[in-house]
Amino acid sequence: MIVLNSPVPVFALKNFKLVIEYDGSAYCGWQRQKDDRTVQGEIERALEIMTRKKVSLNGSGRTDAGVHALGQTANFRCETSISPEAFQKGLNSLLDKDIVIKSCEPVPLEFHARFDVKKKKYLYRILNRALPVAVGRQYVWHIRRPLDVDAMVEACVHFAGERDFKAFEGAGSPRSHTVRIVSESRLHVQEDGFLSYEIEANGFLRFMVRSIVGTLAEVGCGKISPDRVPEIFSSKDRSLAGATAPPCGLFLMSVEY
Amino acid sequence: MIVLNSPVPVFALKNFKLVIEYDGSAYCGWQRQKDDRTVQGEIERALEIMTRKKVSLNGSGRTDAGVHALGQTANFRCETSISPEAFQKGLNSLLDKDIVIKSCEPVPLEFHARFDVKKKKYLYRILNRALPVAVGRQYVWHIRRPLDVDAMVEACVHFAGERDFKAFEGAGSPRSHTVRIVSESRLHVQEDGFLSYEIEANGFLRFMVRSIVGTLAEVGCGKISPDRVPEIFSSKDRSLAGATAPPCGLFLMSVEY
Repeated sequence: MIVLNSPVPVFALKNFKLVIEYDGSAYCGWQRQKDDRTVQGEIERALEIMTRKKVSLNGSGRTDAGVHALGQTANFRCETSISPEAFQKGLNSLLDKDIVIKSCEPVPLEFHARFDVKKKKYLYRILNRALPVAVGRQYVWHIRRPLDVDAMVEACVHFAGERDFKAFEGAGSPRSHTVRIVSESRLHVQEDGFLSYEIEANGFLRFMVRSIVGTLAEVGCGKISPDRVPEIFSSKDRSLAGATAPPCGLFLMSVEY
Repeated sequence: MIVLNSPVPVFALKNFKLVIEYDGSAYCGWQRQKDDRTVQGEIERALEIMTRKKVSLNGSGRTDAGVHALGQTANFRCETSISPEAFQKGLNSLLDKDIVIKSCEPVPLEFHARFDVKKKKYLYRILNRALPVAVGRQYVWHIRRPLDVDAMVEACVHFAGERDFKAFEGAGSPRSHTVRIVSESRLHVQEDGFLSYEIEANGFLRFMVRSIVGTLAEVGCGKISPDRVPEIFSSKDRSLAGATAPPCGLFLMSVEY
């Protein structure tokens, strides 16, 4: 009698890159946590349902609780026959509507969403007028007090270039290397009191954008003069910079490889 | 002995007009309800705290559960010494952040926010592309299937003018008089698959905008030909029009007196 071995299909290990949009309002940030709902945790849970395996997602970096993303990136490696298109579709149907997988593409096995980052871009939105908004309040920092936008634009310049951002690093997870190269630091004045601050760099420290925006806001309020920003840099003293701006105004826009 | 009557201050009856923005996501609509959280109910509760009186708010009209407003209007009459500015400030500090009192002004005693309406304007937002949005998903109707925008623009014309909108009235609270004059009915094509439909009229029936938008969407999908819209009007049969569009895309923009 011939025994037919029922063949167990063996799939080659593949690597997938995701581009992810999320509304961070309801999440305790990106990073997987034991008890709290996080973006990474939700996507990994959906990947486990699809692949019936524990899949570990490498994000380009953490975003904090309440921070949004239009273009977060991540990769995961998996032995699977599922196509990138099927991953995108399946994840989007499994995930809550505040997370959207914008794309899923095959990438070389060695690609790593965090280690291979060349540049990241963030946007921070401020609403500067007496009246707040109800519609879209989740996506902006409302500052009632009139800001001196010219002074803020002046201060922006000091954040561009190769700098030691130690004074703008939040407490908690200090890095040994705190020099970053900022290729763009620009404040845009928009309609109806809306301001948006764009910053692009080869890397960011924890709370760095929110510390910079908090400092810009204090420049706008006249508490810090634009000329004093270089002093804050050289002090390496977090307490001299402005307070950390709230997370709701911050968007991770894109990650470049 | 002279008895001094402690004088009870008597304030003249005053009438105040509010312009109100709200994110309707978390509300069971405008209209006060016994057990559910509504926009009118929340503002009346705040007015009662401020004036220590039961105050009844007249809205320009109801908006349904989940519908938003950038310019809802309402009036209330009250014997009070509180200034319009103090009402605005006080209400905004008492209300949750998804309701904003944009203005409060004194109006003649006879002004009534519903009876005196001349025109109202609504906006409906559609996102027509494969990919939904995570950020701002509360404020748009996502339609995956590609829409024939030219056919929709053609159909829009049929909704302008003096018409009997019986076929576009939702079930529930039928009106005896269903003729309305629509002074604007226009579809705007925006970036990235966003469409917005603007409609202005001297009055609206229940679910009228959402029934029109649902009909436009079925025109866009090829289910209803633009030429058939006049037939739907003359049939006065709700079942011939398109399904009611979801509330999240709808904004009450302004009310004219």
